[in-house]
This record gives sequence, C-alpha cells and structure tokens, in this order.
Amino acid sequence: VSVRAAVAHGAHDLRVEEVDEQPLGRGEVEVRPLIGGICGSDLHYFNDGAVGDFALREPMVLGHELVAEVVRAEAADAPAPGTLVAIDPSRPCRRCERCRAGAPNLCTEVRFLGSAARFPHVQGGFRERLVVGREQVVPLPDGLEPETAAFAEPLAVAIHAVGRAGALLGKDVLVTGAGPIGLLVVLAAARAGAASITVSDLHPTPLARAREVGATATVDAREPVAAGLADVAFEASGSPAALESCVRALRPGGRIVAIGMGGGKLPSVGGPLVAREIELVGSFRFTAAEFRTSVRELAAGIGVRPLLSGSFALDDALEAFETASRPDATKVQLAF
Amino acid sequence: VSVRAAVAHGAHDLRVEEVDEQPLGRGEVEVRPLIGGICGSDLHYFNDGAVGDFALREPMVLGHELVAEVVRAEAADAPAPGTLVAIDPSRPCRRCERCRAGAPNLCTEVRFLGSAARFPHVQGGFRERLVVGREQVVPLPDGLEPETAAFAEPLAVAIHAVGRAGALLGKDVLVTGAGPIGLLVVLAAARAGAASITVSDLHPTPLARAREVGATATVDAREPVAAGLADVAFEASGSPAALESCVRALRPGGRIVAIGMGGGKLPSVGGPLVAREIELVGSFRFTAAEFRTSVRELAAGIGVRPLLSGSFALDDALEAFETASRPDATKVQLAF
Amino acid sequence: VSVRAAVAHGAHDLRVEEVDEQPLGRGEVEVRPLIGGICGSDLHYFNDGAVGDFALREPMVLGHELVAEVVRAEAADAPAPGTLVAIDPSRPCRRCERCRAGAPNLCTEVRFLGSAARFPHVQGGFRERLVVGREQVVPLPDGLEPETAAFAEPLAVAIHAVGRAGALLGKDVLVTGAGPIGLLVVLAAARAGAASITVSDLHPTPLARAREVGATATVDAREPVAAGLADVAFEASGSPAALESCVRALRPGGRIVAIGMGGGKLPSVGGPLVAREIELVGSFRFTAAEFRTSVRELAAGIGVRPLLSGSFALDDALEAFETASRPDATKVQLAF
Amino acid sequence: VSVRAAVAHGAHDLRVEEVDEQPLGRGEVEVRPLIGGICGSDLHYFNDGAVGDFALREPMVLGHELVAEVVRAEAADAPAPGTLVAIDPSRPCRRCERCRAGAPNLCTEVRFLGSAARFPHVQGGFRERLVVGREQVVPLPDGLEPETAAFAEPLAVAIHAVGRAGALLGKDVLVTGAGPIGLLVVLAAARAGAASITVSDLHPTPLARAREVGATATVDAREPVAAGLADVAFEASGSPAALESCVRALRPGGRIVAIGMGGGKLPSVGGPLVAREIELVGSFRFTAAEFRTSVRELAAGIGVRPLLSGSFALDDALEAFETASRPDATKVQLAF
Repeated sequence: VSVRAAVAHGAHDLRVEEVDEQPLGRGEVEVRPLIGGICGSDLHYFNDGAVGDFALREPMVLGHELVAEVVRAEAADAPAPGTLVAIDPSRPCRRCERCRAGAPNLCTEVRFLGSAARFPHVQGGFRERLVVGREQVVPLPDGLEPETAAFAEPLAVAIHAVGRAGALLGKDVLVTGAGPIGLLVVLAAARAGAASITVSDLHPTPLARAREVGATATVDAREPVAAGLADVAFEASGSPAALESCVRALRPGGRIVAIGMGGGKLPSVGGPLVAREIELVGSFRFTAAEFRTSVRELAAGIGVRPLLSGSFALDDALEAFETASRPDATKVQLAF
Repeated sequence: VSVRAAVAHGAHDLRVEEVDEQPLGRGEVEVRPLIGGICGSDLHYFNDGAVGDFALREPMVLGHELVAEVVRAEAADAPAPGTLVAIDPSRPCRRCERCRAGAPNLCTEVRFLGSAARFPHVQGGFRERLVVGREQVVPLPDGLEPETAAFAEPLAVAIHAVGRAGALLGKDVLVTGAGPIGLLVVLAAARAGAASITVSDLHPTPLARAREVGATATVDAREPVAAGLADVAFEASGSPAALESCVRALRPGGRIVAIGMGGGKLPSVGGPLVAREIELVGSFRFTAAEFRTSVRELAAGIGVRPLLSGSFALDDALEAFETASRPDATKVQLAF
Repeated sequence: VSVRAAVAHGAHDLRVEEVDEQPLGRGEVEVRPLIGGICGSDLHYFNDGAVGDFALREPMVLGHELVAEVVRAEAADAPAPGTLVAIDPSRPCRRCERCRAGAPNLCTEVRFLGSAARFPHVQGGFRERLVVGREQVVPLPDGLEPETAAFAEPLAVAIHAVGRAGALLGKDVLVTGAGPIGLLVVLAAARAGAASITVSDLHPTPLARAREVGATATVDAREPVAAGLADVAFEASGSPAALESCVRALRPGGRIVAIGMGGGKLPSVGGPLVAREIELVGSFRFTAAEFRTSVRELAAGIGVRPLLSGSFALDDALEAFETASRPDATKVQLAF
Repeated sequence: VSVRAAVAHGAHDLRVEEVDEQPLGRGEVEVRPLIGGICGSDLHYFNDGAVGDFALREPMVLGHELVAEVVRAEAADAPAPGTLVAIDPSRPCRRCERCRAGAPNLCTEVRFLGSAARFPHVQGGFRERLVVGREQVVPLPDGLEPETAAFAEPLAVAIHAVGRAGALLGKDVLVTGAGPIGLLVVLAAARAGAASITVSDLHPTPLARAREVGATATVDAREPVAAGLADVAFEASGSPAALESCVRALRPGGRIVAIGMGGGKLPSVGGPLVAREIELVGSFRFTAAEFRTSVRELAAGIGVRPLLSGSFALDDALEAFETASRPDATKVQLAF
C-alpha cells in the first residue's frame, strides 16, 4: 500500500507523490501526521539539495516537526489509537559514549527523521502514514491544539539552547537572528527569567515579531551593538558578523550559545575572547526530556502562535516551501 | 635616590638605567627583587614596542615574574625584613563588578606590574627596589629556591587555565603550543590527573621538553591531529590553525581553553563547534588564591626546572631578552 | 543630636526611644528611612533576645529591610539628596578569602545592619536617620513604590536561593515552609521558569497565600509528600521533618536548597541521600549583584504585594512586632 | 552442568557449593573468574544477611569485584577466548530517565552482580563460570596483573566520588574513614592534585595504611578536627559523628561527598550548613566510563597494592570472609 508524501529529489525539485507504507516493527507505533512544520533544514534541502555537508543522494521525504494521531502500535504501553501525539524526531542509539553520558543529542548513530546525514537517508514525516519508535510519541496534554503542539520540536531546540546558558534569572540577554529559532529562544529566555532581551536582525518584520514575543529591545544587525550590553548571547543567525557582535556585546565572563550553523570563519575574536574570558559553546538539537518539557510548556501557554506565518495542504507543499523561504516568513505548516 | 632597572623605551630599545625609587605608602611593602623571569609579554614590548593594542607611550620598566626579599613595610602584618617572597603582580580594584563576582583576573581597573594597558603605565619589577601592596607578597615555604619560585606567576596562569577546564582526572588532553605556558599547562594537567597529554608544536626542541615534563605524546603541528583524540584542549600558541586542530581533535561535548592571544580569525569552526557542542572558553591570568596555590605546588616539587633556559645579570638584560626571543628558549631569568 | 529608633533591649523588651545620630564618614551616605520590613531575625531578637548563637549583649536598633530617602553624602558619585533608595544591609570586608572568591555573603567580617553577630553589635535601620556605605544604596527605578521596594532584601534572599538551585526552566519544585522567604522563593522560582511549584506548610493561611503568588499545588506539612514529586526542593521552614520530606520528594540526583536555619538534627537521611545522590546545599543571604537584581525584579512587577500583612508607625513598633509574630502574618512593615 | 560457588544462605551461613551454570544469551559473554575482591556489601550479607533494607530472601552467590578470563561469547565484537578482563558489575537498563540523563549509576532497574535489591536476586560472581553482558567486560591493558585489576570496581567508586567533588587541584581534602573506599579515595584525590589529604579513623592500622597511600596527615576520629581545615571532605565511614566532623572542618562554601551509607541521624548540622553554605552531596557507585578510567588508572600504576590484606582459595571462602571482617583488614581477595 502506498501513501502520499512530500519528497525532495534535489534542489528545487520537491514532488508530492506516492511512497510505500513503512513496516511496523516491535516497539513501534504507526501514526497519521496532522500538522507538519517546515524547518530551516527542510528549506536547505529544498533550495540547495543539501544541509551543510549532507547532500541528497536519493529521494527523501522531508519533515520532522510533527503532530500526529496514533493509528496502531506494536508496543504494550503505547497510547491508544486516536490519541494525538507530538513526534520526537530523534531516535538515538542508547549505546554510544555520548548516549551513555546523557547527551543523546550528540549521538553519532542517531536516526533523525528527514535527514540525509546517513545513507540510506532517514525518511521524514511529511507523509500520510509514518512509523516511529514507541518512545518518540508524546501524547498532547488536554487542550493543546495540534497547530501549537507542532512547535514542540523547534521549541525544544530553544529550550536546549537556554539550558546551555545556565540560569538566566536577572540576566541581560542578546539574541542575534530573529528567525523561528531566535524567536523561540526569546520566548524560552523570557520564561527562564531574563531581565532584558535584545534582539538583532537585518529585517524589520522579524524584529517586530521579536517585540511581539517578548524582546525588550531590538536593533538593526548592521549597527554595532553596545559593548557590555549582555551577560549571555544566543547566536541564532549563523552569520560570522553576528558572532562578532556577540563577543563585543558581552560583559567579561559572559557566555555565547551558538545555535546557528554558519560555516564561515569566526572573525578575529581570539584576543577579546581570551582577555575577557568569554565562553562560546555550541548547542545542537535536544534530549527526549527537553522535548517533553517543550510539550509541557506549550500546554502551559508559552505564546508561540505569533510565529505561525501560514498553513497549506500537503498537495500545496511546493507553495508552502516557497512561502517559508521568504525572509519575512517565520513558521509555515502543512496540514494533512 | 635612584636604582638600576631594565627599561623599555620602544621596540628594540631596552636600556639598563637609573630610575627613581618608589614612595612607600600605607599597606605597602618595599622589596629587593632577586630573580625575574622574562615573560612573553615582556618580549612583545621588547621586540614590537607593544602587546596587542597596548603600545608603549612612555619608558616602562619591564618584568612581573618576580622573587624578592622584603626590605621594609608600612603594613602591620607584613613579613619581616629579609623574608623571601614571590610577588603576585596583580593589584585588582576590589570594587568593580568582576572583582565582586570573584573574577579579579578580569578586573578592568587592575594595576598589573609592567603593563602598558593603562596610562601612565604601571612600572614593572626588573629593578633593584620595588614597592608593592601588602597582599601581593607571598612568603616562600621553607626549601623553595628563588629560581624555582620565580615560576609562580606563569604557573599560576597554567593553574587558572586548568581550572577553566574542570576536573581532569582520567581525561585525555591536547596542548597546542609548547612555549613556557604550554609546558606549564602540561605540568598542571598531569598534576590534575590527566590520563594522557598530547602536545603539538612546530619545533622539535619544545616538543622534546614537553616529553621531559610529562607529555605522553607529541606531534608536529603541521600534521593533522587525529579526530576524537581528546576530551579537553588547551590552546597555548595563539595560532588560528592550532585552534582548528583543537576543534578537530575534540570528542563531542569537549572543551577548549584558549590561553593564546592570537588575534587572527578563527578558521571555519562554526559548523563542527555547534554540531558537536564544543565549548571554547578564554582563560586570562589568575586569582590571588591561584597564585598561592602555584607557590604551594612549586614547594611541593612540581618539576618546572627543565623549563629554565638561562640566567643573566641585570646589566646583561639585553642579552637575556635576545636569548629569550629565540624559538628554542623556554624561560630566561634575570638574577639581580 | 538624637533621633527616634526601635531598640531591642532584650527578649520582649522593645522600646521606641532616642538614640544618637551616627557620624557621616568618607564614602558614606546619610539617609532617612521611610519603610522598614520586619524580618524573621528581628522577631527572634524581639521574642527570644537572640538569633541562634547570637544573643543581645547591649541595646540594639533592629531592622535591615529598608527603603529610605538620601539626606546627604560624603561620596562623589552618591545619589542626590531626595533620591529614594533601597538599602543593601550588607557591608562585606572585600578582603577575606570569601569576598575575594565572589561569595561576600559568606564574609566573616561582614557588617550587617541590625545584627548581634559582632560586638559591639551593628546597629540596625529602624530609626529616623541612618548612615550606610555608598555602595549600600540602590536608587529605586521610576514607578517603584517604597512599600514594594522594601521587599528588596528578602526577595534577594530568595533570588540567591534560586540561584543555588541552578537553572529551573521546566523543573518541578517543592517549597517547604510558606513564611515570607518561602513565598518569595515561590515567586522567584516561577519567574525562573519552574514547571510546577508545590508548597507545604502546617497552616492553611500561608498555603492560601502560596496559591495566590503562584504555587501550583499545596499540601499539609503533616501529610507525607509523594516520592519523586520534585527535581528541586527549597527548605524554608527550618524544620527537620520538612527536610526529611524534601529528601523523600526528590527524584534521584535532585537538589535541596536549605534556607531555614533549624538547628535540629537531620533525621536519618543518610542512606537515601547517598543512594539517590541527593544534593543538600545551604543558602545564606545574597550578593550585592543579587540585591540589584531584586530591585530590578520588583520594578518589573514581580508580585510581592499579597505578602504585605500590615503597616504601622514607628511609635507603634511594639504592636507591629506582635502582629508580625502571629502565624498568619506574612510581612509587616514600619512606615516612618 | 554445575560449577562451584560461594553462596550466602543467610547471616553467617556462607557455603561453597555447586550451582547451575548460567545460559549464554545474545550479546553476552561467559567468563571464568580468576580473582574476586570481597566488598563491604558482601560482608554485610555474610554478617547480617542483609545490606540496609535489602535482606536475603533466597540463596545468593556473592561477589562483584572480579577479574576473569573470557571463555566464549555470543557477541560479534567480544574479546577472544583467553582474554583477561575486568568485570563491570553494573548492567543498567538504558531506558529509564536516569540512564538517559547520563546517570546510569542511579538506574532504578539496574542489575548489579551479587545484590538482593531485586527479587529474584541478581546472582554474584564468586563462582567458577559467570555470564555477563558484552559491555560489562573490559580487557586488561598489557602488564596489568589480575590481583591489581580486581581493584577496578572499588577504585571506580572512589573515582566517581572524586568526580562529585569537582576539580581538586590545589584543594585541601579531608577523608573520614580509612576502610578500602576511604583509602582508594585518598589515592584518587592525590591523583587529582589535592594539595593536602587529612584522614581520620578510629583505628591506628588503617591510619598507617592511609599514610602509606598518600595521606599527608592522619587524625584519631575521637579528637575534634580543626575548623577550616579543608575545602572538600569525603565521608567514607557512614558515621554521623564523622559527618559532623566534616561540617566543622570545612571552610565556607565547602563540599562534602557522602559515600558511607550510615543510616543514623545527621547531628544538628543544619545551622552551620546553611550559614556557611556547605554542600552535602551523595555519591553512589559509578558509570561505565568511570569503570574504564579505573582500569586505565590501575594500568598506569596507581598504587593500590598496599590495600591487599590477603588472598584465599574459593574453598577457603569462609576464612576469607572472617579475615575480611576484622577491623585491621583492608581488602581480601579470593583466587579461583
């Protein structure tokens, strides 16, 4: 039996077409996706045919920000058919050194939905039926709407980044880059008690949205930021110039959490980084516990809805991806 | 009254000449320097007339790695005249935010011996008489020789750097750069229980010295280091290429402590730093407590003596600085 | 010249009487107190003539939770006369090992307003004129009312305690004891992003107030708490039974922050503490930076006002202390 | 087929008798134990028929400190038959919250060799043939003798405890209790760079042994320890009085790592613990990574051999246990 799916065949070659259903193994759950958010990495596959070093080598179903309905399960304690669940797209190995050290987000054997990091690629979730591991499905708390719950994955990324910064109560925060991740970091940092949150971006629309979700100040990324502005900076743009701004903005002993994957060179930060003992730490994905925290925060009312820029049917996936690629878009969803 | 001193007047213009004695204020101690180690920053003033952004704007006595004998004091609890002391060259303000937060090494108002960071410059200690604050003198434990004790300052830098790395017991360590600081980091990391210590440098002589002080392996810095070699890296060369090696060598979640002040660009480390959650943290100078630990470790026998490349009289300061500038020199001392 | 003050002469011997004005030294500020909150330690001096080991050995003006107006200053950069300020009651020595390590709250030479820990005692601030150090006065941000600002000191205690717990975003929290400090911890923990806050107390009135300020659940302290309820517990009652509840309630690896000074024995917690690797850490007072954060949080609207149980004139200090001693009172203030 | 084993049937009822061989499952390895160290918990089963709350409810083979020879394996990457291996006695579930958080030592579903915590009990390793999981066998590095390698398990406990203390370089350390774990903590703390190590115990023989393995001072546990002696204390005796000594001995902000499982009450430490912000943290077992570090440290020459009090054949197990129960014994081994 086959189901419809949004399949990337290469750069600018996204097709909605039939793909085979997936077999249901022991400890697994078959779900029917309802909402799928389009992520920056989906857009990279769509626009460039690759994410960093990971190029498409075969057709791959995209999508890993998913809310779905349980269809059936081969696991004793699985949620009942009909249950609405958020899907944790990570399936770490649980055996490698990183998994054993409590950092499954750094698992080198991880199977992550819709990723070309391995070959054969791990097929994603923009499809009418999907099979995942039992531990990947998290039932939605009562009253949490699917459109909101579909932010669980990117909010988990933001919660993990905030966790990398340590306690934020009373701290002054800078966020460079007001894309979806940057804005979710604003929400998570406000929730963690940041005293002020300054956001920089090149475009006015994302900056306006930043103010809507809790930024206390916004700045044009072309202007130099004030020195000594912040205790903690989140670099969510991937731009080397933004990283330089973070170094300049931080007080001595401050910390930069780098979430953006910009591959460029880090501009001459060596001297100030050493002399002011700045800490620059990477932040990558999230753990299963953080994904659960994310679902719980969404149910408790953390205000992600201003980030939703549009919703499209699966058959209109191409239009959805084009809309999501515009600089003034934040989050675009597919509704199955 | 005047005393003889080694005074830098500009690049390659070091003169041994008479300078005025310093007045002795309340809470201060006058000492007679016995041994003075030549530091990398002394060499920068000597060779370039500047350290980074801080250029000589007036004649400045060099020197901040000092062992001395107490002459007299205006402080009730000061060591008796004749007592041998190591000199902590830092005099932090105790009032700024960093001092109050327990990071006096980042004090922006610090007076540091022999530094052009402020104007008028803070005169250094390569002179026959020197006045310092009461809290800057640390009596030598019985049996600690002055030549050894003169390593207290640079060893404190290494101890601080090792502290920035967290617990090292059982960890695999990489040190890039086998100059005096890199070698002292080898000693301190071994003392802290590192399971292995790999050292890289461009020259064979420093690498041989690294093995002498406890390196378990050495590598030519021109060769690529093995990926996944280390849990913790200490970057002590200031070279961007070395920093790139550190990123490559580290296991996921690893930490780089950057001590070298290389002002160059950090070569494209953004992607791997994020995806493997590498931590890059600056390390700058040391606290008063770490200086005391350093003196105590020297007394307990930490083996710094292989690092001593030569000793010269004050009148031969020029020759001493030229010797210290050679790539195969490690630490050169002045004996007053 | 003399001013009126609330002076403790011994247990149940509080007198409003004339005391000498204090001399104004260099670096000091004279202020006119406007609001003074009555703290648990004030009540101990009032009811028992002592706080723990520190007994009254001479008459002592009570009070250290103060908002005041600047009268005059002997410090160049002091706020102008008429400026409203919150008073940080701590004057640490800045020289001891703890001060230098960034823990001035543990300074052994600290002068803390209204404390019998030293002799002669450090006189407190329930008086018409008070002299403090320049660095002890923090101007109130625009719009912050004095009655609210007078919570700066106890809220700083709560903020310090929350800081001892590490990041709280998404964590489940237990608070034992719903006195003023316990309730302020509820506010601070909510602000730091706690996912749930359960509060236990022996009395229904404080529990009702706990719900008012953000507790998500309340329990009678006589009932056993559920095992595995919390990631972090704040012990604010000083009761050994409450500490036992904290151990029971925590998940493996959880942390207890002990704020209550109960001198009793810790009931057999050794086994579970070891086998579940519970962390029990003390929390004492706050730093100057945390005091400033507290003022800023009050200005930003953290909701302390439900804690205010009553206000009395200085001449009615006796009635104020009797009211504050009742189990259903939270915070009672003197208005000068 | 049956093999001989040392089986505890109850308090003071240890029998060397035949037990059934264990089936070899997928991912498992069958080994032939060569050396087995007798642990404190083995002695509790032997003397009391229980360890804390865990009583013997069926006959149980004792033993979990083991070096063995591989016989055969059902795992592709297992060491070849004949390989000498140290046995990690822990088999955590890898699925519970603690395992996923990187704390498998706190796994609630763990299978630990020779433990009555579960029913049916997990049979131990004092037997001629034993089946364990593939990941439980760690090949001995060249030159590491089996008698030394049999310290891998208790040394891992000490390494974990030292890890709970944070970096020790330059710190003053107190160890209360000079039994095998206390002495191994002395070795591990020295290796981690402790500046001084004071050991307290009730008996002179263990104190003499402490000096042999690196203690810089020893004290009779009946004498009060000096206040402000230490930055870090390891409580390895399980005695409430010792815990009280730790609190007294610590400087403000110090940390106690509690390894001893003494179930008694903690004597009135509440006040000082709060006012000096002491941290009291439990330490329980170790992780797989720490077990590997332990084997590596033994191969590198950490000096455990002074701790070996005697060696007995399996048939003389009763004599071995009686010897090990004497106060002047440290570690007694069975040689199969």
